[in-house]
Amino acid sequence: MAQKPSIPKGTRDFSPIEMARRNYIFNTIRDVFRIYGFQQIETPAMETMSTLMGKYGEEGDKLLFRIQNSGEKATEAPEKGLRYDLTVPFARYVVQHREEIQFPFRRYQIQPVWRADRPQKGRYREFYQCDVDIIGSDSLLGELELVQIVEEVYKRFGINVTLHINNRKILAGIAETIGAEDKIIDITVAIDKLDKIGRENVNKELLERGLSEQQVEQLQPILNLEGSNEDKLSAIGDLLKQSPTGTKGVEELSEVFRLYNNSRTDNTSAFNIELDLCLARGLNYYTGAIFEVKANDVEIGSITGGGRYDNLTGIFGLAGVSGVGISFGADRIYDVLTQLNAFPQQSQDQTQILFACFGEKERDYALTWAKQLRGQDIPTEVYPDLTKIKKQMAYADAKRIPYVAIIGENEMQTGQVMLKNMLTGEQQPLTREALIQKLK
Amino acid sequence: MAQKPSIPKGTRDFSPIEMARRNYIFNTIRDVFRIYGFQQIETPAMETMSTLMGKYGEEGDKLLFRIQNSGEKATEAPEKGLRYDLTVPFARYVVQHREEIQFPFRRYQIQPVWRADRPQKGRYREFYQCDVDIIGSDSLLGELELVQIVEEVYKRFGINVTLHINNRKILAGIAETIGAEDKIIDITVAIDKLDKIGRENVNKELLERGLSEQQVEQLQPILNLEGSNEDKLSAIGDLLKQSPTGTKGVEELSEVFRLYNNSRTDNTSAFNIELDLCLARGLNYYTGAIFEVKANDVEIGSITGGGRYDNLTGIFGLAGVSGVGISFGADRIYDVLTQLNAFPQQSQDQTQILFACFGEKERDYALTWAKQLRGQDIPTEVYPDLTKIKKQMAYADAKRIPYVAIIGENEMQTGQVMLKNMLTGEQQPLTREALIQKLK
Repeated sequence: MAQKPSIPKGTRDFSPIEMARRNYIFNTIRDVFRIYGFQQIETPAMETMSTLMGKYGEEGDKLLFRIQNSGEKATEAPEKGLRYDLTVPFARYVVQHREEIQFPFRRYQIQPVWRADRPQKGRYREFYQCDVDIIGSDSLLGELELVQIVEEVYKRFGINVTLHINNRKILAGIAETIGAEDKIIDITVAIDKLDKIGRENVNKELLERGLSEQQVEQLQPILNLEGSNEDKLSAIGDLLKQSPTGTKGVEELSEVFRLYNNSRTDNTSAFNIELDLCLARGLNYYTGAIFEVKANDVEIGSITGGGRYDNLTGIFGLAGVSGVGISFGADRIYDVLTQLNAFPQQSQDQTQILFACFGEKERDYALTWAKQLRGQDIPTEVYPDLTKIKKQMAYADAKRIPYVAIIGENEMQTGQVMLKNMLTGEQQPLTREALIQKLK
Repeated sequence: MAQKPSIPKGTRDFSPIEMARRNYIFNTIRDVFRIYGFQQIETPAMETMSTLMGKYGEEGDKLLFRIQNSGEKATEAPEKGLRYDLTVPFARYVVQHREEIQFPFRRYQIQPVWRADRPQKGRYREFYQCDVDIIGSDSLLGELELVQIVEEVYKRFGINVTLHINNRKILAGIAETIGAEDKIIDITVAIDKLDKIGRENVNKELLERGLSEQQVEQLQPILNLEGSNEDKLSAIGDLLKQSPTGTKGVEELSEVFRLYNNSRTDNTSAFNIELDLCLARGLNYYTGAIFEVKANDVEIGSITGGGRYDNLTGIFGLAGVSGVGISFGADRIYDVLTQLNAFPQQSQDQTQILFACFGEKERDYALTWAKQLRGQDIPTEVYPDLTKIKKQMAYADAKRIPYVAIIGENEMQTGQVMLKNMLTGEQQPLTREALIQKLK
């Protein structure tokens, strides 16, 4: 036999069971987006290179997949590439369709993205993102709703998470306060690693990145902040009170906390929100709130992240449009649910009943039953081949079909089927009406 | 301002209203696939070039999009390409995963495909296919189920269609009977055009393609067949009785008709199935039944098509696996539903109620209501910005949100909202419980 075919490295096939689980993830997220009044859009897999290039930093540019028409000469520079994320295509969409859009525009988008990253465990070259954004309003209700959406999504998944929140303006205020406005990127990149590499190493990196000993010293109270979110906000407010930008950031976060607490209508155990002044996230387009979600019981890194951007559409020539959004990482959520064994037992794509028939006459008879069950939206199969009942049962077993209706001569005479519960092994003869009743 | 951004030619953005309609199409088709016990798989957008090349004829090879890593030199031949259809990736999947698959394998797949076709009205370079296949059984129950699925899908859409059916073995039998086995492709290509170009032109083309006058003469009774499906089958059975292959094809189709009639459980007006001996379809891998569906009330060509293939996986080294499948064309179905004005009024992504608030206090108050409504799965928005009520109402109007809850000082005092029905203009004060009751 020829060599077994394969797929490009870093890509995946999804089997029926994997798809059922992925659909559970997508549907759960989508359901929550919907109750918050978001509407879906889709953009093409390919964008022009001018839309993509220069949006993800030098590193990102190198990870773009370029597309060539078969007809094009290999030496021509491809004009198209596969989308790298959903954010840049969304910004492009908003600018391109701004005349048709009703602002504030509440959109969600669930589509694959492609990156020519070196494939490794848990990192793929094709993966789905689930993005939700409100664009065209600078109201902090946007931040509130994203916090609520995160809370609701993970409640539905049964995953305990912590939402880390910060504000880019606070980071700017810190840089300003220690007299290092020009070093804000260096500061955020370094302190973002506090969790991973510890305080001493962060300080070392800050010095290497050109901060003075005195500036690093001034940063220490900020790296040291402890206590409740309120305590931290109050302390950082004091530290940054000379910086209008920093003060604005503290006010914004305080307002988000106030809105969140104000909206709570039940006494269920509070959702875990943590003010994390070291949270920066790599992307440079954030200008206000920054979010990151981590699972409490599984070590896997960020499973959701996002923030406020005041000028995302500016790259396409439409300035002054503020927005806020987050992205759920379906693959990591999949891994968390797998580790927690938290997928629902029953899949949407599960056949409920298989008709197993002794012969052709019986199969003809089964087909009329199947038609009726399907008319009641009951997922039904009739074993197609005339073969041993044992083989038909094995098929049902392997596919975890919960019921098999066996039809032989007896059953045809009495107008019934012998229904076998594949879990308990129990058998009972049932009429057509009784069977429909049982399976509905 | 900079030049408005754009997308590659032949590709499309889908707006919220278009997505809602597309989702209606996908969900309807998927629901029917499910009640027939099919399970979803997905394959990567990119396949290796060796998987794709040579599977779609010379013309098809030219229409493949090739993918380059950004790091690759432009002169290197790309090793990957975007999938051209779902059939070849499915065959590849079956061969690659044959050890894990439970045969007969009933799978569906709803994903985009890409072709570097010259863009024109109604022809896109990225479009979705919805494929359903049973592989690993040569039972004619497969054909039956596909016929039933077509019937059910279009019944749900409210589109009147005709299912054209033929059998490749009959076409082979015809070629055999007139002594032109080697000319079967020429014959099928020519007679497939009967509807479009008429009998005289078909005959002309047959002569040009190398058939003798006598052979063309022998074909005439076949091109002339009329009457009911039963009449035609009986006539063609007589004409082909010397050809075992042709006779087999007639038997197969007769059995599919018999199974279909046997399974009917109601007296609703019969689904329109038409035996069409000129139906060939371009693809050469069909070996048995061939299907094509056309809308009766809209001129648009084939909206669904497929057939039986006995050796699809043979191209990847796994011989002797018979299958049968069909593909629904989402874009054409979209166009048909648009022309028939047959999309449902209500979309799944539709906000039910917007809270419009006079001030900040009122908005805080609204947020607690919104939280409760969302807890009841009612899609809810709170207008985020503090602006004139008139502007907030205009937003609801533009988004066709059916209800607006207006909150001013009065409402806060009485613990109610003023609910406005945006369709009728009617207003009524409602308590929280009454509002939930009304919207659920």
